[in-house]
This record gives sequence, structure tokens and C-alpha cells, in this order.
Amino acid sequence: MSLFFEITHRDPNSRARAGVIHTAHGDIETPAFMAVATQATVKALSPDDLASIGLQLLIANTYHLALRPGAEQIAELGGLHEFMNWKHVLMTDSGGFQVFSLGTAIRDGVGKIADIFPEEQSAAKRIKPKRLARSGGAPLCKIDDAGVTFRSHLDGTLMRLDPERSLHIQHQLGADFVVAFDECTSPLDSHAYTHTALQRTHRWAERSLAQHARTKRDYQSLFGIVQGGAYRDLREESARVIGGLPFDGLCIGGSLGKSKKEMHAILDWTIPLLPDAKPRHLLGIGELQDIAEGVARGIDLFDCAAPTRWARNGALIVSRAIAENPERRLNISNARYTRDRSPADPTCDCYTCQNFSRAYLHHLHRAKELIYYRLASLHNLRMMTRFVREVRAQIIANSA
Amino acid sequence: MSLFFEITHRDPNSRARAGVIHTAHGDIETPAFMAVATQATVKALSPDDLASIGLQLLIANTYHLALRPGAEQIAELGGLHEFMNWKHVLMTDSGGFQVFSLGTAIRDGVGKIADIFPEEQSAAKRIKPKRLARSGGAPLCKIDDAGVTFRSHLDGTLMRLDPERSLHIQHQLGADFVVAFDECTSPLDSHAYTHTALQRTHRWAERSLAQHARTKRDYQSLFGIVQGGAYRDLREESARVIGGLPFDGLCIGGSLGKSKKEMHAILDWTIPLLPDAKPRHLLGIGELQDIAEGVARGIDLFDCAAPTRWARNGALIVSRAIAENPERRLNISNARYTRDRSPADPTCDCYTCQNFSRAYLHHLHRAKELIYYRLASLHNLRMMTRFVREVRAQIIANSA
Repeated sequence: MSLFFEITHRDPNSRARAGVIHTAHGDIETPAFMAVATQATVKALSPDDLASIGLQLLIANTYHLALRPGAEQIAELGGLHEFMNWKHVLMTDSGGFQVFSLGTAIRDGVGKIADIFPEEQSAAKRIKPKRLARSGGAPLCKIDDAGVTFRSHLDGTLMRLDPERSLHIQHQLGADFVVAFDECTSPLDSHAYTHTALQRTHRWAERSLAQHARTKRDYQSLFGIVQGGAYRDLREESARVIGGLPFDGLCIGGSLGKSKKEMHAILDWTIPLLPDAKPRHLLGIGELQDIAEGVARGIDLFDCAAPTRWARNGALIVSRAIAENPERRLNISNARYTRDRSPADPTCDCYTCQNFSRAYLHHLHRAKELIYYRLASLHNLRMMTRFVREVRAQIIANSA
Repeated sequence: MSLFFEITHRDPNSRARAGVIHTAHGDIETPAFMAVATQATVKALSPDDLASIGLQLLIANTYHLALRPGAEQIAELGGLHEFMNWKHVLMTDSGGFQVFSLGTAIRDGVGKIADIFPEEQSAAKRIKPKRLARSGGAPLCKIDDAGVTFRSHLDGTLMRLDPERSLHIQHQLGADFVVAFDECTSPLDSHAYTHTALQRTHRWAERSLAQHARTKRDYQSLFGIVQGGAYRDLREESARVIGGLPFDGLCIGGSLGKSKKEMHAILDWTIPLLPDAKPRHLLGIGELQDIAEGVARGIDLFDCAAPTRWARNGALIVSRAIAENPERRLNISNARYTRDRSPADPTCDCYTCQNFSRAYLHHLHRAKELIYYRLASLHNLRMMTRFVREVRAQIIANSA
């Protein structure tokens, strides 16, 4: 049984909706925020921690897990749910985003790629040079119509990912929601290149669906990804094509423009063209304001690694009244918290705020103590789940 | 009210005894193992974690806390119990051991010490040169009869510690058990020097008692420290002197020789000379076999940072049957655990063993994921508390 999405409430003043996604690993009340479990763990937190703060689902990274420890190994150990002991809903991404963002490819045959892939030189595409050093100057990633060849960022091994392999790996991992393999373009890409990539993504979407039918487990649902960069015609084309295919859910992915305004425009172009009945996930986005804006435009699911990354860096999410900035954060490393006996956020019900002062968190952060990372991450994720619960409650209230 | 120690059972075949120490922060069933909370946290673990595995008391480091965040600040924040939210029994050490082991002093006026303390040159004593680099070549620690002058290992600030200051700081921190300020000698020290240091330690013991009477909080108890290195006559002298002073409890400290055999001999010389009615703490010792041997010789309390340090390095304490070595540990980084679905120790009831496989711990350790440190530390400390519970149960059984 794949997912069953029930929309229970609609906000009459926006495209916001509240609902429930029923899955084999329990229900998800939407809108929902999912924490990022890159390497089969949300950094510094245990499954008990995550469940205690109301996290309903996690997203793990196919690229990272395929490299280490390997999808076959996780399958042999009973799948990702059992491996990481997460009893609730899991999603995996397609691996494409990490291949493109961690890798480097050469477009137009520039550089050393000819030494590695002489036969596929013309289709190669450059994304980011930052990992060149690790591969001894050799490019780490190359795209052709069949798929992507890249080098592992861990040990430089040459690897291949394509729709069939990505879906097969995701089926082995065994998450509830899996995602079609797509080409993720950069904000710097031209309309012409973005269009070429989009057509490839659409062909890959059909191949992903075909592979899904072949090797999925019964409970797994497949999400398609709408691409098209910040180009209106391409986003609309993609929404129609991907929205018309028999996916169980839909993601808005890729480059979402260079500003919040552009991102909102992309959602406004795209979402009205998508089928209403399928859950919609805005990939990789999840600051508080982004969630409010996304929900108002019809998004149901969000994932973002920023709240836990901020936490590790000392930035704690707090109520507006006590924040140091419009992003609603305070920097616990600030000397003003040295003798502050109040909790990170006095309105918060998380373990951290119920038990420890800002002064103690300041001390732990300064001393780089391991427990700091857990306490801060737990708090920031609790602020996220509370915020999304409030957004949901507001939709329900408005719908009455 | 200071501690009240009740010996409830005695092993007829050894000097082992079981008992209860009653304190203002609850009872401790002895023999007991305490975890080390160096900087007001047991690395990677929360107070809830610690209570969940039966830890009855923790020992925090006066030296580290006096440097950061500072004893006055902790006092202002309500004391160490409140600061770190530990509701059970707390002990602090005197700070002396860290001053001597983290610091460097020059004996006989060699080196640069004259530039800093020209007037006290002759009494200076060299311990360890390892921190010289950080202080730009200047010595970090110097001992005279009045006390110790040292440089902070954090920022090189020149600081002073003596019995009065150590006790005053410990009173500010507010632990249940505080410890007299002593000079900790090295296994390399001669009989003559160890004797000189011992006499200083005995004078400092009386000054510690006097300061304790002046600034203690009502519930605080003072432990004396028996020194004397591996010299039988000095250990016996120290046991008689320290044992004869009105301390609430007694620690065996300092250099415990160069082998387990020497350590056992030191306990055999010392303990019969100590008053029976006071709890005895073997400072800094706590491998499983050491605990068994110490208890049999009449020790009631142990502390050791090794179990959590081993955990962070991948060494998990396990039952004898599944251990890789006589120390009863397995190395989770070993490739043999890559696909091992069993828990670290199938007999263990900790959160880690109840929820995660060796394969997952192996993955987390290899990926250097933060949650690994918590899961491994929790397990190792649970193995310690279980072991000590078993030792206690055996004493009770033998006494029947």
C-alpha cells in the first residue's frame, strides 16, 4: 500500500491545506517538517529524541548511504528503518542533488574530463569546482542522457547513478517515500541549458516510474520532482509534465531563484498546475518564514538541514520577542548569556529548555562539549515542529 | 548535615564492605562508581542519561571549572547541581591533580621560571614539560609551601591555588563531597622528594580542614587524601596522619605505583590503618578488574574517565564471553562488525543495546557522527554501574 493523502481542511484565504498522509509506518499530519538524517542519523539526536519533539518523518540521503555503508548492506540489515531504529515515516532523496552539489563535472569538454570519459565529452557539464582538489584535479561528476558518472567524495571511486540505479538503491534502503532521479540545475544556468536538463529530467521521471514498478516494496511511494530553475515557462512545462505522470507525491526541486521573492514566484507559477490531491514537498527549504510562505502557497512537506546546523554553530531558534534578529535566532556564544539563568526560550517545552539555562548552554558551547550539540539541536527542531503545528492549527481555525 | 556512612554488610573473606552513604542529595549504595564530569558534563551524556543507567554520583573538576566558567559564576547561578541540572550527589576534586598534570613547573631553578617567580625559585619543582609550548616556553606550574602558582592551559593566565582557595572554590561550586588540597607526586619522584611533598600535603590537610570549617555549606563533607607514592613507610605515615584528622571521608591518591601489583600493595599497606567508619575513595581508578581488586581491599568509591574515553575511541565494554581481549572490550571500528545485527552486548539493558546493532554503531563511528559518542558512552557507563552492582550483590550474598 502506497501513501493515501487526505486533505481535511483548507484555508479560504490562501492555497494552504491541512491533511493527513497515511502510510505503512504511521500517519503524518500535514503541513509537516522533516529533519534531515544525512547518514542515517539526525546529527547528535537519537530516535527517542526525535519522537519526543513531535517529528513525524525524516529524510535520509541516498548518495551518502550508497557510499557508506552501502545500500545492499542496509538492505541485508533489514532496511533503513531497522538500521537506524526509526519506527516512523522515512523518505530518501534520489541522490542527484548530492552528486551535483558535491561533485564537479565539465561541460563542453574543458579540463581533464577527456582523460576519464573521452566518449562522453560533449555532454559533460560543469557545476562546482570546489571538490577538484580531493580528486587530484580530475572532475568528480559528469552528466549524459543515460545518467551521471561521478567520483565519491570519500575516496574518489568512480561511480554511476541513473534513474534505474537510484530507484533500485532507494528500494533497497526501504524508505516510505522515494524520489525520482532528476538533474538539478544551477541558478547560473542559461534558459537553453536549463531546458535541455529539464527534458532530461522528464525522460528520467518516466524511467524512474518504470523502475519503481519493477523493484519497489509494496509500501513505498514515489515522488516526482518539478524542475525548471527560475524560468516561468520551464517551471510551468515541468509542472504539467510531472503533474501528469502517475507519481504518488510531488516535489518542487532544483534552483529556486536568487531571492525569497523569486522562490515565491516559482511556487505561484507551479503549484496551481499540480494535481490537488497529491502531497507536495518543497525540497531543502525550511526557515520559519519560508515554511509560512510555502504553506500559504500550497506546500505540505518541508525538509531542511539548517535548524540543526545553526544549532551546532550556536544559533538557537527562539520566539520573536527574545530573538536577536528577524530570523528569530539568538547566538548562544554571545557574552550576554554568560550569567543568564533563563532557558533558551521560556515558551519552549523541549528537554533542553525544561532543564538547562542559557548560561549552561553558553558554557557547553564555549567548551565544545559534545552534549551541547544534542541539547541545541533538540531545541531547534522542537521550535520547528511547534511552528509547523501552529501553522497547521491556524489553517484548521481559518477553515471553520 | 554532612554525610553519614552506614556499613551494612561485610565480606568475611576480604576487606570488602557494602553500605549506604546518606547525603543531602540522596543515598549512595556502596561500592559505587562515579562518572567524571570534567567541565560540568559527563562527555556526550545528559543528566537523564546518567540517572537512567544507575549512576549515583559524579565528580567534577575544580581546576577546569575554576578556569571556565569560574566558581563565582557557578555560585551566582545557584551552584554546580543547578548549573548542570544534576539532582543527585556531586563530588569535586581539589584541583591539585590537574594543576600538576596539566601544568609544568621547574625544580631547582632550571629554565625560565626565574623570570616569573624569582623569589620562589628554590622550591620550584618540575613535573611535566608537555605544556611548555603553549606558554611560550614559560613553565606552567610552580609549588611552594604556601601553595601552587600555575598558568591556565586555556589562555596562559597566571593563577594561584592553595588549600584555602581550593576549598573556597569547592564551597562555591557546592558539591556534596569536597577534597583537601594536596601535592600529587610523580612515580619518578625520589623517596626524599616524596617525603617532602607528603609533609606539605599533611600541613595542607590541616589548612583544608580549617578552611572547610570557615566557608563550607552545611551539607558539604570533606575528604582527606592519603599520599606517599609507592613508598611503604610514607603511605603508612600518611594513612596514620590523614586517617587521624577529622575528615568525613578518605581518598587514596597520587602515584599508585608502576603496576597493578604495586597499586594492590599500596592499598594493602594503607587501608588497614584507616578508620573503618569512613568511606574510602580510590582516586582516578576504575577499570573493571581494578574495581574488583579495590573493593576486596576495602575501597567504597571509584571514579575514572576511561570508560567514556574508551567509548569515544571505539572500545566498548562487553561481557567476557564476547570480548576481544582480557580487558573485556571490543573495538567497534573492526570490520567484523560491519554486518553484525547483534547489540554491543546482548546481556546489556542500556538504551544503546536495546535499540541499535553493532553494524549501526560501526557505521556511526566510521562516519564520526555525534550520536555515536552518546550511544557508546551510555553503554560503557552502564556496563560499569552493572558491574559495581554485581560486586555489591556478591558482598551482600557472601555476608549472609
